[in-house]
Amino acid sequence: MGTTKDRLYEIIFEADTKAGKIFDVSLLVVILLSILLVVLESVPSIERDYHYFLKISEWLITGIFSLEYIFRIWIIQKPKSYIFSFYGIIDLLSVLPTYLGLFLAGSHGFMVIRALRLLRIFRILKLNRYVKEGAIIVRALRQSRIKISVFLFAVLTLVIIIGTIMYLIEGGENGFTSIPRGIYWAVVTLTTVGYGDISPTTSLGQFFASFVMIIGYAIIAVPTGIVTAELTKQSTKTTSTQVCPYCLADDHVEEALFCNKCGKKLN
Amino acid sequence: MGTTKDRLYEIIFEADTKAGKIFDVSLLVVILLSILLVVLESVPSIERDYHYFLKISEWLITGIFSLEYIFRIWIIQKPKSYIFSFYGIIDLLSVLPTYLGLFLAGSHGFMVIRALRLLRIFRILKLNRYVKEGAIIVRALRQSRIKISVFLFAVLTLVIIIGTIMYLIEGGENGFTSIPRGIYWAVVTLTTVGYGDISPTTSLGQFFASFVMIIGYAIIAVPTGIVTAELTKQSTKTTSTQVCPYCLADDHVEEALFCNKCGKKLN
Amino acid sequence: MGTTKDRLYEIIFEADTKAGKIFDVSLLVVILLSILLVVLESVPSIERDYHYFLKISEWLITGIFSLEYIFRIWIIQKPKSYIFSFYGIIDLLSVLPTYLGLFLAGSHGFMVIRALRLLRIFRILKLNRYVKEGAIIVRALRQSRIKISVFLFAVLTLVIIIGTIMYLIEGGENGFTSIPRGIYWAVVTLTTVGYGDISPTTSLGQFFASFVMIIGYAIIAVPTGIVTAELTKQSTKTTSTQVCPYCLADDHVEEALFCNKCGKKLN
Amino acid sequence: MGTTKDRLYEIIFEADTKAGKIFDVSLLVVILLSILLVVLESVPSIERDYHYFLKISEWLITGIFSLEYIFRIWIIQKPKSYIFSFYGIIDLLSVLPTYLGLFLAGSHGFMVIRALRLLRIFRILKLNRYVKEGAIIVRALRQSRIKISVFLFAVLTLVIIIGTIMYLIEGGENGFTSIPRGIYWAVVTLTTVGYGDISPTTSLGQFFASFVMIIGYAIIAVPTGIVTAELTKQSTKTTSTQVCPYCLADDHVEEALFCNKCGKKLN
Repeated sequence: MGTTKDRLYEIIFEADTKAGKIFDVSLLVVILLSILLVVLESVPSIERDYHYFLKISEWLITGIFSLEYIFRIWIIQKPKSYIFSFYGIIDLLSVLPTYLGLFLAGSHGFMVIRALRLLRIFRILKLNRYVKEGAIIVRALRQSRIKISVFLFAVLTLVIIIGTIMYLIEGGENGFTSIPRGIYWAVVTLTTVGYGDISPTTSLGQFFASFVMIIGYAIIAVPTGIVTAELTKQSTKTTSTQVCPYCLADDHVEEALFCNKCGKKLN
Repeated sequence: MGTTKDRLYEIIFEADTKAGKIFDVSLLVVILLSILLVVLESVPSIERDYHYFLKISEWLITGIFSLEYIFRIWIIQKPKSYIFSFYGIIDLLSVLPTYLGLFLAGSHGFMVIRALRLLRIFRILKLNRYVKEGAIIVRALRQSRIKISVFLFAVLTLVIIIGTIMYLIEGGENGFTSIPRGIYWAVVTLTTVGYGDISPTTSLGQFFASFVMIIGYAIIAVPTGIVTAELTKQSTKTTSTQVCPYCLADDHVEEALFCNKCGKKLN
Repeated sequence: MGTTKDRLYEIIFEADTKAGKIFDVSLLVVILLSILLVVLESVPSIERDYHYFLKISEWLITGIFSLEYIFRIWIIQKPKSYIFSFYGIIDLLSVLPTYLGLFLAGSHGFMVIRALRLLRIFRILKLNRYVKEGAIIVRALRQSRIKISVFLFAVLTLVIIIGTIMYLIEGGENGFTSIPRGIYWAVVTLTTVGYGDISPTTSLGQFFASFVMIIGYAIIAVPTGIVTAELTKQSTKTTSTQVCPYCLADDHVEEALFCNKCGKKLN
Repeated sequence: MGTTKDRLYEIIFEADTKAGKIFDVSLLVVILLSILLVVLESVPSIERDYHYFLKISEWLITGIFSLEYIFRIWIIQKPKSYIFSFYGIIDLLSVLPTYLGLFLAGSHGFMVIRALRLLRIFRILKLNRYVKEGAIIVRALRQSRIKISVFLFAVLTLVIIIGTIMYLIEGGENGFTSIPRGIYWAVVTLTTVGYGDISPTTSLGQFFASFVMIIGYAIIAVPTGIVTAELTKQSTKTTSTQVCPYCLADDHVEEALFCNKCGKKLN
């Protein structure tokens, strides 16, 4: 029976074998369906018309997820290593809300935690180009995390100051009822989102807002610049992996067959 | 008559001869007029005042397009290769709505498919610099398609989670009547479009929204960074105008001394 | 008197001498005042309270500008070369509206043409670093004009198609009263401006809009990428103007004193 | 006692010793609390419910800050060098509003000046990577300040012209009551903030606005391009960590063999 368990382990936890891939893809489809279900259930008109169908599907999917969860614990050698892993916790949190819903109202929305299960997709795509390219983005973001932290800290200070000045200029009768609301406005403006739910109405306020927006021009350029500079560096790095075995030149285009410095064949 | 047909073929299908160019440019003008017509017809006041003029023009242009379509089928050796080609299908779809309009109401709007005929412009400009530079953009976008896919997948997961959290925080009375609407809000906010048709009104909602917007800062930097890094690489590549005199390969780095395809010396 | 005229020519038309610089700076101040005047005059409350002061200042400035214009024609050798030059036409258009205002109502707003006179600032700054750096931006934009044209053409086609689809989905009762209005909405959305004066209200419309916005993500990255790639190239170019006279190496940092390849002194 | 004063000086003014670091971090926490206090006090509901608690905390923090200020003056050798320094003035301005509030109403909002005290954080982080990376951003922004000035000047001219044209097209009944308001709209639109508090309603206005937004596409690309190009250059520069062993110059290109300042060989 040990071998059966081993084989099941490979199917459920790994994605290298054909059976394992089929299992993971089917699981992904069920996860997508379960998210669609949560989303549809929140639409009042759909909930009213298809109440029973949605409820039954809900319990069906929760059943599948519960079985899968128990199965995973049973199949693995050290259950604790799974239960307390990132995916283990998410898998548990995905089924809990439905059960809790029997006793507690309002826990329904937490089922969206299932969306995090989608991250499993990265395990299926494990070996191919997507992960590599994704890794470049992640690496670029990680490399620039200090620059971005400094930038975010500067933006936070700026946003507090701008929000307070605007609160002093406009006052409560124009929607700026408190400093937090002024800060909210400053964030909405500096990020160029601009809802318009709160906007300056006095002349001085509009003048100051124009000034803030033009500053925002330079500010929005900074994170873009940081990430772009990092990505340019990363993508330059990844294209030049070939090194000429004769003269050690390393600036070859990706499909190069011969060294562009000494003319010898590359391998 | 074969030669006449051959000559007509060259005029209608090719853009190399002078007559062919004149034909293509005139066709382009008619296409532009036909789009303008569809656009104007949709404006109630213009439709009321110029009803007959617009109707007549409509049938005139449909007539020209129909004749052109029949002509193309008659002139080409293998009609099927045209009929089922990308342009052949668009050409047919451009005239169908007017005829269908005799029997069916509401098919009028589909005439906008004609806008796709504008893509013919790239055939007229076939040989010159515009296409080359356009090709650089297209190549840069194609090269970065995997990075952009990974990015879009991450954004989709994020948008589902943010939309649901906002739905839980704000609730139906503030416009967030369902999770899909919350997701719509999340997209509007993360892309910095910010209509303001739905916007947070509770303090917690505004705090969370500020947080989302500042995250959006870093997120919007990513696609820009991807495309810019790729375009920088592309435009660096194209600056090396060296072509190997032996094998005509043309993708050399700027300081290349030897062809990277055949190993011969570059001059 | 010829020499007086010559000297006056140098003061008025050139900015190399000290007197010429003083003249140009004073002129710039008057131009700024004249623009401020037009702007203030348009504010109803200010116009009511300071009517006579504004009217007198208006005629005073028009008088100064008229005198300057006549003076320029009198001082230059070939008046036609000034009258029909870019600056000559702007100078004339700057004074005409005030005179026309005696006979015609509504010509007042055209006085804003004076803002174009501000471009004279570039003549004063003629010889220094500002113009050089400005020239880099202009050159980068000019170099990328073909890429930007192709991009704009693609955006225009896209905007027509998106606008029409939205017109078909939402219809007149939700603000999309005609295709031009749909196109206006598409431009507002794709550029991430997002006024919210027209926004989708049906579920299908909001779904399609979300799709458009996420496409807009990739689209907004393209012009940024084009300009950045060009600016990176330009700024790389401008830093390496020094060439080693001994080994011809040319990749020196701006303040380099010695060649980094052969160690010889740079001059 | 001199040594005690010296030791206190090191604790309060420096951040190198352990005690100094603890002092600075505690101070930072108090500053954060004081800002939170100002922010919360501005929320009407909180102010009503916790009036006395807030008032007492306010005076407590003002007391701490006042003591700290007096202490700093007493401890330093040349008090003037502190009193008239950047931090000295901010420290004074942080406590003044509370005292002034005894005599004057409305001075409360100025307490937000305390937010500027947060900049002290950069003294605590003095020696580590954050400051280095932050310095890269600052250097990139400083290097591109001339390009950005030219750009801002061009944008200002553009915004005045666009705002006036829109004022002429739309007129007062559609919200464009004066040229300054038109300019405000132009800034809101070009920066893609797009509140929607003022937006074009006539067909001509919407057509012109679409045109402005598409121009804005190219315009928003420029500052991003400037900063990105500069940051790319900066981050490329910093990768060459070679320092000349003779003259300690450190701005070498990556493949440099000789020092560009003294001409000696690098190893």
